[in-house]
Amino acid sequence: MNAERRFVEELDDFEDDFDRWYVEVVRKAELADEAPIRGMRVVMPYGFALWENMQAQLDWRIKATGVQNAYFPLLIPRSMLEREAEHIEGFAPEVAWVTQGGSKELEEPLAIRPTSEAIICPMYARWVQSYRDLPILINQWCSVLRWENRPRAFLRTSEFLWQEGHTAHSSLDEAEERTKLMLEVYRDFVETELALPVIPGQKSESEKFAGALRTYTIEAMMGGKKWALQSGTSHNLGDHFGKVFGIEFLNAAGQREYAFNTSWGLSFRTIGAIIMVHGDERGLKLPPRVAPIQTVIVPIWRKDAERETVESAVDGVRESLRDVARVFVDRRDDKTPGWKFNEWEMKGVPLRLEIGPRDVAGNQAMVVRRDTHEKQAIPLDELATRIPQLLEEIQDNMFETAKRMLDENTERVSTYERLKERVAANAGFSRVWWCGDETCEEKVKTETKATIRCIPFDQPGGTGDCIVCGKHSDTEVIMARAY
Amino acid sequence: MNAERRFVEELDDFEDDFDRWYVEVVRKAELADEAPIRGMRVVMPYGFALWENMQAQLDWRIKATGVQNAYFPLLIPRSMLEREAEHIEGFAPEVAWVTQGGSKELEEPLAIRPTSEAIICPMYARWVQSYRDLPILINQWCSVLRWENRPRAFLRTSEFLWQEGHTAHSSLDEAEERTKLMLEVYRDFVETELALPVIPGQKSESEKFAGALRTYTIEAMMGGKKWALQSGTSHNLGDHFGKVFGIEFLNAAGQREYAFNTSWGLSFRTIGAIIMVHGDERGLKLPPRVAPIQTVIVPIWRKDAERETVESAVDGVRESLRDVARVFVDRRDDKTPGWKFNEWEMKGVPLRLEIGPRDVAGNQAMVVRRDTHEKQAIPLDELATRIPQLLEEIQDNMFETAKRMLDENTERVSTYERLKERVAANAGFSRVWWCGDETCEEKVKTETKATIRCIPFDQPGGTGDCIVCGKHSDTEVIMARAY
Repeated sequence: MNAERRFVEELDDFEDDFDRWYVEVVRKAELADEAPIRGMRVVMPYGFALWENMQAQLDWRIKATGVQNAYFPLLIPRSMLEREAEHIEGFAPEVAWVTQGGSKELEEPLAIRPTSEAIICPMYARWVQSYRDLPILINQWCSVLRWENRPRAFLRTSEFLWQEGHTAHSSLDEAEERTKLMLEVYRDFVETELALPVIPGQKSESEKFAGALRTYTIEAMMGGKKWALQSGTSHNLGDHFGKVFGIEFLNAAGQREYAFNTSWGLSFRTIGAIIMVHGDERGLKLPPRVAPIQTVIVPIWRKDAERETVESAVDGVRESLRDVARVFVDRRDDKTPGWKFNEWEMKGVPLRLEIGPRDVAGNQAMVVRRDTHEKQAIPLDELATRIPQLLEEIQDNMFETAKRMLDENTERVSTYERLKERVAANAGFSRVWWCGDETCEEKVKTETKATIRCIPFDQPGGTGDCIVCGKHSDTEVIMARAY
Repeated sequence: MNAERRFVEELDDFEDDFDRWYVEVVRKAELADEAPIRGMRVVMPYGFALWENMQAQLDWRIKATGVQNAYFPLLIPRSMLEREAEHIEGFAPEVAWVTQGGSKELEEPLAIRPTSEAIICPMYARWVQSYRDLPILINQWCSVLRWENRPRAFLRTSEFLWQEGHTAHSSLDEAEERTKLMLEVYRDFVETELALPVIPGQKSESEKFAGALRTYTIEAMMGGKKWALQSGTSHNLGDHFGKVFGIEFLNAAGQREYAFNTSWGLSFRTIGAIIMVHGDERGLKLPPRVAPIQTVIVPIWRKDAERETVESAVDGVRESLRDVARVFVDRRDDKTPGWKFNEWEMKGVPLRLEIGPRDVAGNQAMVVRRDTHEKQAIPLDELATRIPQLLEEIQDNMFETAKRMLDENTERVSTYERLKERVAANAGFSRVWWCGDETCEEKVKTETKATIRCIPFDQPGGTGDCIVCGKHSDTEVIMARAY
């Protein structure tokens, strides 16, 4: 591909115009490209390789809790989507409708799934008769469609890639337990694999999923403007969907009951979080555990006489790293080493190995960290042990750095004035007391554009005064602007 | 799930009504279920686990040839789909059209991809400037939609899962090489992993992909009616799409040229082939290499006193097999062992281990093969070495059995009468001389419903008389009815 030629330009200043910086990193790191359809993007091979690694790490975690993968149809008849009233109300403005199949007008329009509750629940109704058929624990990896007029790669596109899990249970308690378990799976995945610290908590009534009893979320703080990004949600649907779609079962006592459902999803917008949390003025910075290329080797030689020596050392190094890291050797001969260094930094590769004639003579390689820019010479025969250690150190350092950013830009705020100031100044998350009244929530949203990101599980205890109305409150919430 | 309760019924006779047998196996083995939308199916967890194993085995093979995965939009603007005339003519009758996005009528209808050439080629046109940007080698795993009025699980559904590879090259030769390489990848995958012998060859003009220069195919023979199933195709698109979508590049001499494209796809209809080639009157028979469960262990005990002894032996066996096979222990206590045997045979699990009190006393397990029904006692401490060997033997035996079926039901035919007889009698593949004229091809199709499945690479040499018109011919083709 030809990004190389656009490449010598500099990135827009990271601090000055973070939104523009984001767009440029996506393009220059070759993560995604615009598609010739409004609101859509193409996920390019480098971006998709990142997503595949993320999928693999999340998929085994999901399966380890007893969930199996399956696949449900892309299209949902209108009558089915409309059955749960809040659900359709929430999604109707964003749905794409198929009205023609082949040369024939359809009798009933079909929605391209904006989420799959309305097609999965009718199947569960068919599969469940007795409590012995429960729980049903199913996940699917797919794309969904929600019409979007202000697209932004990964963060907000009309079509996006995700996984959506859907379970059915014989009791509300069991559904609640599953809802929280899956949020914990998300937290563990996002913090461990993506080095993204998050705040887990519950959504307010006004922010919960359309049709849910309650919604849990993990919220991350982005770099730049320090806005929030909802990075995964898990919904306890109660028996709303069970009743509407007739998921009935005979309990052990022989009585008819409706099943309790959960659903939970994590999408490729977490790639947006990786970009915005870890990135810097040189471009992307990928967490080693999911980086498509963990270590790039750049052979350096000027005279043809040097080439053979260098290439053969590089082959040896590559071989010795085969089982310990995902390695790519950049052998292009129409690019200078300096050019390659810039490109691989832009693409966020965690470690760069430079091997030139003098390195070969000294039996060493220069190893450069993407996170700290630290440079060190490492003996060739130690690389196989040192590289994996360094990758772990980088992963840990990236998490710690992000955690520091989150902590340093979170403040307990007790006056509405201070809250407004902080939101206006893009100062990060504000922890405030909230009386629980939607009027207060709405006032903040209208006046500052900040929303309640979540009621964090981690509560300070005690009580305080609602940031808006001053009423007595025992609930602290996180307020911030969000993508 | 509740298939258990429908389960005691017998399968319809395998020989009498193969089509009905197919439908029942799909349902009783819990591979797929009907969806509440005409022409669509739900892939159930057991069927999807099979597909996941197949994907893994095909995906690494594709990547080993230098191809990377990516993701392109689900929707294609009408004007784009219509650009290549033959292409749209071929697909128009099957396309589902989105005409409304959210609450707004769209200015231009968007097609749900029936295949993605028309959305991928415009991107390649943007990405390619110089010969240095070529080749582009990209694959995507996704679902596509082709309206279908007579659906059949896996074989023919409006939405189906597949992979589609799309490449661009600087010469026709290179494109041709890639086209054949990918067909060979398919042949190797299908024969090695799925134990399905196939005949690789070229499609006739009338059967080739809409818009292609030429199409290669692998054709398998199904059990029952001995019809053919096209199991994977690879298309050399020449520069048709390059010209239409403007994929231009500067060659090494500095001249403008159009790129040459290929595309190739393999779908979950190969699951249909697995069912129809290997299945028998007891149900599914899965090739060990892709079976979700390779070995099922059924603990057998009557008195509670026996239970502990048996369960602890079973735990030991399970542990010893952890790294050598995908094992499932069926501990359900509301089903009899005999019931479980039937169910796991229906689900095609290659090996069954029965462990009862007497087996434990004798330090052995009874091991039953799904393919031959052979039963043998194997000492517990030999299981970890014997089970993997047996799985390999089963895989080989399944391939050999299928190969025998293919060979025994293929005949060189020299008269049109004999051809008609064979087709009418569902006697399998006929190898016949064909003059290359579409009139002769069409006559056979109209009069017998048989089509030219392929011009096999493996030609007998020499010449003969066209089966229809008697004209001199040096081309042998395979004729058969097909799904």
